[in-house]
Amino acid sequence: MSDGRQIKALLFDVFGTVVDWRTGVTRELYPFLNRFAPQVDAAEFADAWRRQYSPAMEEIRSGRRPFVPLDVLHRENLKKVLSDYGVDSSSISAQEIEDLNFSWHRLDPWPDSVAGLLRLKRRFMIAPLSNGNIRLMMDMAKRAALPWDAILGAEVARAYKPSPEVYSKTVEILGLHPAEVCMVAAHNGDLAAARLCGLKTAFLVRPTEHGPGQTSDLHAEQHWDFLATDMNDLATQLGCPT
Amino acid sequence: MSDGRQIKALLFDVFGTVVDWRTGVTRELYPFLNRFAPQVDAAEFADAWRRQYSPAMEEIRSGRRPFVPLDVLHRENLKKVLSDYGVDSSSISAQEIEDLNFSWHRLDPWPDSVAGLLRLKRRFMIAPLSNGNIRLMMDMAKRAALPWDAILGAEVARAYKPSPEVYSKTVEILGLHPAEVCMVAAHNGDLAAARLCGLKTAFLVRPTEHGPGQTSDLHAEQHWDFLATDMNDLATQLGCPT
Repeated sequence: MSDGRQIKALLFDVFGTVVDWRTGVTRELYPFLNRFAPQVDAAEFADAWRRQYSPAMEEIRSGRRPFVPLDVLHRENLKKVLSDYGVDSSSISAQEIEDLNFSWHRLDPWPDSVAGLLRLKRRFMIAPLSNGNIRLMMDMAKRAALPWDAILGAEVARAYKPSPEVYSKTVEILGLHPAEVCMVAAHNGDLAAARLCGLKTAFLVRPTEHGPGQTSDLHAEQHWDFLATDMNDLATQLGCPT
Repeated sequence: MSDGRQIKALLFDVFGTVVDWRTGVTRELYPFLNRFAPQVDAAEFADAWRRQYSPAMEEIRSGRRPFVPLDVLHRENLKKVLSDYGVDSSSISAQEIEDLNFSWHRLDPWPDSVAGLLRLKRRFMIAPLSNGNIRLMMDMAKRAALPWDAILGAEVARAYKPSPEVYSKTVEILGLHPAEVCMVAAHNGDLAAARLCGLKTAFLVRPTEHGPGQTSDLHAEQHWDFLATDMNDLATQLGCPT
């Protein structure tokens, strides 16, 4: 465990850590699927859409494909999943596809996120270090009142987590030493990659990110610098007044 | 004149348009010069430091030098100006040079800036499109309560205004058409470059940016889409309630 006195900036994973993507995407899938694929379960579709996330980014992480923002990957992945469920996406207007794709811009924060971030912001620089693109993060922040000091992440670094350059370029942009920056995430893999780049790490457990039957990321897999039950707990551990 | 109904995002020049760089830098130069060069006038030194700004960026705009953030150029320019005034900067500690260099991070907004931006933020996405780097813009925003939705600009686009790619890449990041984006600046040259990229333009006159004897940018040099006396006037013209 660390006392955090050296830390000047906190970087946050967003999907799952700050916002509840599964509930938000499922909510917007109901009316869409009701029209185009009424036999499909919305939460199951949301999970299938999310399962395409990492393989799509892997094309870019591996260098097989140049960087494109996550909105582009989400749209491609949506069409693929529709096709997997037997829905011909070419029969749906581009505007309707785009509206659904932007459901990722309209996710709700976990109940503790905004209050905790407001406390942390008074003492630290706070920014997302998400694979979501700038416009996505900005739309989400405006709607959900996430009080970021800047929008950092994959699109600024032109690479996807957990590639090391995402963490290192972001630390460089902040003009800080890696040990002055703490990565906050509900995912052990994200923290492991950040630690390899010299960042401090805070594990924030989100046991229902993947729904009621979640089996992954329920426990810390390394001795992270901080272990928090939610954003307010993290703020308290880092000495931020309520 | 335009009615602004098409506009979704406003991008702001910052030095001179949103904040009063000359007063802020001069204020921090007093104690510094008092120690190292008491014969030098602080406002005159601030002007000399600022005069190095465009030539330093021109090295990068021309392709003769790879992109470096403005903090680096400001530090180099400071040492050059110290030398021009006969001060040996190697006799001053790196920390003291750095502290003074960060005076650009601690500039005060014009009296109308924050109130006007808060009104504009309710209706539009708002972001700086400054040549200042992300850390500079973020430090400034935290200190001065500038309510940006994201920090965009030179460091994100990896190019300096008025190079066209700064405007075009930023519009692309926003996922908008150029005509849905309005550049707000107190400088005719900035607006001319933005207009060539298809953006809307708003001229905000700042008659004392360069001190009491200012002769440049006192008037619109083209028929810009909006002409505003200050940030609140712009908000009113764009239909934002008080």
